[in-house]
Amino acid sequence: MSEHTRAILLTACPDQPGVIARVSGFLADRAVNILEADQHTDPDERAFYMRLELDHSASNLNAASFDEAFAEIAGALSMTWRVDWRTKPKRLGVLVTKEGHCLADLIYRCASGEIDAQIPVVISNHESLKTAADSAGIPFRCIPVTKDNKAEAEREIDAVLTDHACDAVVLARYMQIMSPWFISRWQGRAINIHHSFLPAFAGARPYHQAHARGVKLIGATAHYVTEDLDQGPIIEQLTARVGHRDTVDDLIRKGRDLERVVLAEAVRNHVDNRVLISGNKTVVFD
Amino acid sequence: MSEHTRAILLTACPDQPGVIARVSGFLADRAVNILEADQHTDPDERAFYMRLELDHSASNLNAASFDEAFAEIAGALSMTWRVDWRTKPKRLGVLVTKEGHCLADLIYRCASGEIDAQIPVVISNHESLKTAADSAGIPFRCIPVTKDNKAEAEREIDAVLTDHACDAVVLARYMQIMSPWFISRWQGRAINIHHSFLPAFAGARPYHQAHARGVKLIGATAHYVTEDLDQGPIIEQLTARVGHRDTVDDLIRKGRDLERVVLAEAVRNHVDNRVLISGNKTVVFD
Amino acid sequence: MSEHTRAILLTACPDQPGVIARVSGFLADRAVNILEADQHTDPDERAFYMRLELDHSASNLNAASFDEAFAEIAGALSMTWRVDWRTKPKRLGVLVTKEGHCLADLIYRCASGEIDAQIPVVISNHESLKTAADSAGIPFRCIPVTKDNKAEAEREIDAVLTDHACDAVVLARYMQIMSPWFISRWQGRAINIHHSFLPAFAGARPYHQAHARGVKLIGATAHYVTEDLDQGPIIEQLTARVGHRDTVDDLIRKGRDLERVVLAEAVRNHVDNRVLISGNKTVVFD
Amino acid sequence: MSEHTRAILLTACPDQPGVIARVSGFLADRAVNILEADQHTDPDERAFYMRLELDHSASNLNAASFDEAFAEIAGALSMTWRVDWRTKPKRLGVLVTKEGHCLADLIYRCASGEIDAQIPVVISNHESLKTAADSAGIPFRCIPVTKDNKAEAEREIDAVLTDHACDAVVLARYMQIMSPWFISRWQGRAINIHHSFLPAFAGARPYHQAHARGVKLIGATAHYVTEDLDQGPIIEQLTARVGHRDTVDDLIRKGRDLERVVLAEAVRNHVDNRVLISGNKTVVFD
Repeated sequence: MSEHTRAILLTACPDQPGVIARVSGFLADRAVNILEADQHTDPDERAFYMRLELDHSASNLNAASFDEAFAEIAGALSMTWRVDWRTKPKRLGVLVTKEGHCLADLIYRCASGEIDAQIPVVISNHESLKTAADSAGIPFRCIPVTKDNKAEAEREIDAVLTDHACDAVVLARYMQIMSPWFISRWQGRAINIHHSFLPAFAGARPYHQAHARGVKLIGATAHYVTEDLDQGPIIEQLTARVGHRDTVDDLIRKGRDLERVVLAEAVRNHVDNRVLISGNKTVVFD
Repeated sequence: MSEHTRAILLTACPDQPGVIARVSGFLADRAVNILEADQHTDPDERAFYMRLELDHSASNLNAASFDEAFAEIAGALSMTWRVDWRTKPKRLGVLVTKEGHCLADLIYRCASGEIDAQIPVVISNHESLKTAADSAGIPFRCIPVTKDNKAEAEREIDAVLTDHACDAVVLARYMQIMSPWFISRWQGRAINIHHSFLPAFAGARPYHQAHARGVKLIGATAHYVTEDLDQGPIIEQLTARVGHRDTVDDLIRKGRDLERVVLAEAVRNHVDNRVLISGNKTVVFD
Repeated sequence: MSEHTRAILLTACPDQPGVIARVSGFLADRAVNILEADQHTDPDERAFYMRLELDHSASNLNAASFDEAFAEIAGALSMTWRVDWRTKPKRLGVLVTKEGHCLADLIYRCASGEIDAQIPVVISNHESLKTAADSAGIPFRCIPVTKDNKAEAEREIDAVLTDHACDAVVLARYMQIMSPWFISRWQGRAINIHHSFLPAFAGARPYHQAHARGVKLIGATAHYVTEDLDQGPIIEQLTARVGHRDTVDDLIRKGRDLERVVLAEAVRNHVDNRVLISGNKTVVFD
Repeated sequence: MSEHTRAILLTACPDQPGVIARVSGFLADRAVNILEADQHTDPDERAFYMRLELDHSASNLNAASFDEAFAEIAGALSMTWRVDWRTKPKRLGVLVTKEGHCLADLIYRCASGEIDAQIPVVISNHESLKTAADSAGIPFRCIPVTKDNKAEAEREIDAVLTDHACDAVVLARYMQIMSPWFISRWQGRAINIHHSFLPAFAGARPYHQAHARGVKLIGATAHYVTEDLDQGPIIEQLTARVGHRDTVDDLIRKGRDLERVVLAEAVRNHVDNRVLISGNKTVVFD
């Protein structure tokens, strides 16, 4: 079966009886086969979420005709939905400052196909990582940020991302706080890696905070960016063991491995349409 | 909603289009609501597995009428199925020898409701753990096993389990190899805990083997018992870090925590109808 | 070699050259053999910590003569020290409220010798866990706590612990905040289990907090009790994976396994003289 | 304190009383300060191992004079030893075939200083990873291996490693079995990454073996290369969770993260003189 006959359908609707029967019946009637199915009912939000991997090779349905056909059933169920027809890889703009380990890791995973995406541009407020982008053949844009030019810098970042037709933006250790304007522009499409096990050690210098507190585990957290700093919906977290012999530098070193893996996992799941936002939480169909 | 209006439907059939639509349509037509759904397609076995948690409070369907109604659709799909109407807790017979940590743990979890099951009887080839069973008010049967009485002992064990109406048997560090006869009697209903990360260190004294090999992690494995020793379908595994300072006794001590948790998790998932056997593997819908 | 010829020496002093040479020379001159040695230099505290397991079977040194002989060298190094001659098991008073999993676990580990300690008394502000203590043959004291009798209740708890010659007190899910008076009485000898990955979710109902925040890992933390609630030196921490399907009850259930293991590990290391407090952190020589 | 006044002393000798006192006394007499100390007694080998980080800034001892001075005490204790004066970074030759993730990772870590070593040359039996070496400015040598030229190829590899003054060789997914001749040349200095939790799934295609067996965890193992394939002393191991939904490709993908981290950790500890071989095991002072 060709990749081009596979699509991903994501749906969200109020919890109610018969949703699976209605949607799967609709698809079966149109000769669309369900390859993989995941559902989740959130009792607090009284919401029902579903992800379906579809094979439409035997069907007449396609990107052009699906929306009109599906609108009726979706309307009846008060359902929002989106379909990814996977005609081309997602495009990820990457924001960085000086720490290059997450950038190098994302470049490697996209190039090797582990993450099904391309990186059309790297943007930074410093020149430090220009070489890393250059040697991978990725355009690098340095957009310095100061107290005075912050709004202007963000508009420029937004323009560069838009020019490069980015589907999402990854803050791969970008050490600037984004404004509500920027965040609303990239709502649900901006992923940040925070170098602690949130909500512990939000804010600046989390490894220093962790060392001062004497924790026995450090962590990393990938989350969607929202207006509340380090408070957005968490996509992925991981911890690693540390001990009394570990200095702040050891924590930073051990943390880099967590950050790489946590960010990559979050980005991969986002790219594969496996993440749904439910209130201030995520549903991750992995 | 009462627990008594919830049921679990497990199905297995050849992979084919339209299964979800057929089954969910059947249920919707009869006012049975799907509360939770899990599916898995095994491409090697070309098999499709499904677990549905159902609310039948608004339906006329019940234990008496379901099978007849469902038989038609199941026949059309070449589907095998079972429904657990959850009218009473599962009954687990526990086999032990001298090590009591898994037994104590299972007793605690069943008593506290963490595992939705009862332990009507503990059977051992030694007297060592009689007190543990006694103080929990559980009948204890000592059935010694020697070279000469093995077949007879197993028939007695089987009879005791049957007398106590056991749904499944848990080998909670029972240090005897069961015969094909016994195993076939409890096919898919006998769970063993092996104190290593199988397939490493199968057979006797795995912690001694692990120490001699100098591994940096030890493990534990819960699996269904089959005729091939320590080769049955794996339900759950876990590992823990060890180092050069750890003696065999340290490995045994650290391993006990793995064994407790791994066995409890496997038993809990089995009891909750979350485990399906697919060839020599398991599908665990957790 | 008899257990009675082994002792543990713990030392703390300002960091300075020659400490190991001085102490090991002192011991070698007196025919005391070092079986195991651990050292740690804390650069922030400018302090040097050492733990030595000693075999004094060939030596004249003993509990009576050691202190006088060692005082000179300790004075020269500005060293504080303590020796555990291990003549009898440590005695642990356990405080509980209604949750019994940690209590049951500690009882099992002490009885089986996994933790080299005895539990002479269980104290609770409720009657719920009386049976658990009774069936293990451990005296149970119910000391209810109200707003009005808090100070008096604590004096009674302290008296009971003292009457039973307790070396340390374990707060095994004891849901009361201790007063500065009580805490100072048991400084460095009171271990609490908190059911979150501190410093995240300090205070009440941490699993509810964790569920509301949508974390992908939950944790447990064992720490020494200090005047600042949930802020004392951390001894041990562990995390476990959770997902969007997990309800608060699932978090509580998964958390119990963390709490059991984390508390047991902390208590075992404390009992074995493997934990030193350094400022608001711990050095754990494991 | 300058890095150039720090040295690492590693010792191994039969277990006997007074070793710490003798060695630490020797150092204190010569104004060498012990910054960090680790000891281990292996009861099976009846051997005592020690690692000391030394500050010799106030001492007359240096690389030239140490050996002669230390020889007397070492002779009396039947002690073997080595000192790393850390005058220059270690040099690591890296062998690869077609999989580039471990190579890319090692290059990044060495370049960023996370591993205190240089990679003077990359050698492969294929051309696939030439670009990876080129873009990092590292000489790449392709030495194809066939049935007929194996001995010759190994001599060439050995010559290239020697020409580049390599201290150690890292088999970073090099898919060739080395001969006893080569292995004896690099005894204790050749580190391999095996993509399974050894001793499970030794030999070829371990992820396929793991998938066929239906394990719930996969692993990776870094070990010293010995004549017995995949049987050498284990330096580091790690596992990660997999489930019934994971295909062989998923296992390979998840495994890459394990391999990167496990190999990097093993190489870092080797480079920092933290690994001692004790029979067929390792002592890792981390």
